[in-house]
Amino acid sequence: MRVVVPFAARQPKTRLEGVLSAAERAAFARTMLEDVLNALDTAGHEPEVLATAPVEVSVPVQINDRPLTTAINAVFAERIGRGATEAPRAPETQPSGSTPTAVAVVMADLALATPEALSRLFDADGDVVLAPGRGGGTNALISRHPEFRVDYHGASYRDHVANARALGASVTTIDSFRLAIDIDERADLADLLLHGEGRAIQWLCEAGFELAIADGRVGVRR
Amino acid sequence: MRVVVPFAARQPKTRLEGVLSAAERAAFARTMLEDVLNALDTAGHEPEVLATAPVEVSVPVQINDRPLTTAINAVFAERIGRGATEAPRAPETQPSGSTPTAVAVVMADLALATPEALSRLFDADGDVVLAPGRGGGTNALISRHPEFRVDYHGASYRDHVANARALGASVTTIDSFRLAIDIDERADLADLLLHGEGRAIQWLCEAGFELAIADGRVGVRR
Repeated sequence: MRVVVPFAARQPKTRLEGVLSAAERAAFARTMLEDVLNALDTAGHEPEVLATAPVEVSVPVQINDRPLTTAINAVFAERIGRGATEAPRAPETQPSGSTPTAVAVVMADLALATPEALSRLFDADGDVVLAPGRGGGTNALISRHPEFRVDYHGASYRDHVANARALGASVTTIDSFRLAIDIDERADLADLLLHGEGRAIQWLCEAGFELAIADGRVGVRR
Repeated sequence: MRVVVPFAARQPKTRLEGVLSAAERAAFARTMLEDVLNALDTAGHEPEVLATAPVEVSVPVQINDRPLTTAINAVFAERIGRGATEAPRAPETQPSGSTPTAVAVVMADLALATPEALSRLFDADGDVVLAPGRGGGTNALISRHPEFRVDYHGASYRDHVANARALGASVTTIDSFRLAIDIDERADLADLLLHGEGRAIQWLCEAGFELAIADGRVGVRR
């Protein structure tokens, strides 16, 4: 299965303005990307990065500076084309969970993602498998349906369920805290400090961040 | 296993001030409680409510107006006492996952909790099983260790892990979005509108709430 990790290489993590400088946001985003790639690798996958500008990582990088939805749908379309030219195999001889057109999309800021959480995604049956994010996003997905397309604007989880059903595709939703929390805002850093297991939490600690508890609520201070 | 659902019967959900009136907050909190009790019942459990004041529900209610941590630890202590007077059984004859001292605590505002998500909690092995909430809380737990005690102040998930380890108790963490999202603030209502399956989402819709998408972010409007 092709496993794509989109990465906004220019001005990433703008909602962490006021918490991190532009250079720090770039370094932190890069560290989270590496954590996601490592978790995918440990889970037995060979991810590739779909970046808006060149980025040096240990996996293949494809550059596409178009908006996320357009760039991902181009991968889907390309995959279908490639799938159609592959030697046809009877469905029953295909490895479980793998079809010529299967594509996984895993966001680069899932700093809590572990190999175990990702394996629940990859092991799930369904033409379309969705890991919802907080606030209606789609933090990770697998499409095994040749006509499924994404639309990451707004409440994309709801739209992706509707898109899949309109195609008659079966939908499986993964109930995972680790895949639901993407690191976008200051409050998300507390979840990373509490549950992180990779390099991003190390980066955050080395940058001087720690948990802060005030009025019974948990946040971060530097 | 004793399954306790603590419920703040007086002035619940104060962080929804500005979104709901006091009377609405009370009705909404009550509806979420009923959803949690129904989900536990469907998952095969017999919950009881531990309330700060009388509340009419279809399950037994124990009143304790002390702070949450004190009230829950009193249940643990009582359970141990009762466990000690029960006819002793050899460990191997006990039902799987059940010990005389086992207690589950499930928060009353887990409006996204489904029987499936709760079953993952109850089916998990471990002396202490924790379902972390966003921001470091402990939204649901099972203790099968007679000396384990709770402390819900601050980053309780981290403290509960530490408390369990200090006792030499094994800890299992449940990776569940549905158990991680408690409904405390306005932003949480969007997750309920997106993923709710019980009465609370109906209540919210009947009260005139709907999803609102602005600048690519998902919220609610009324």
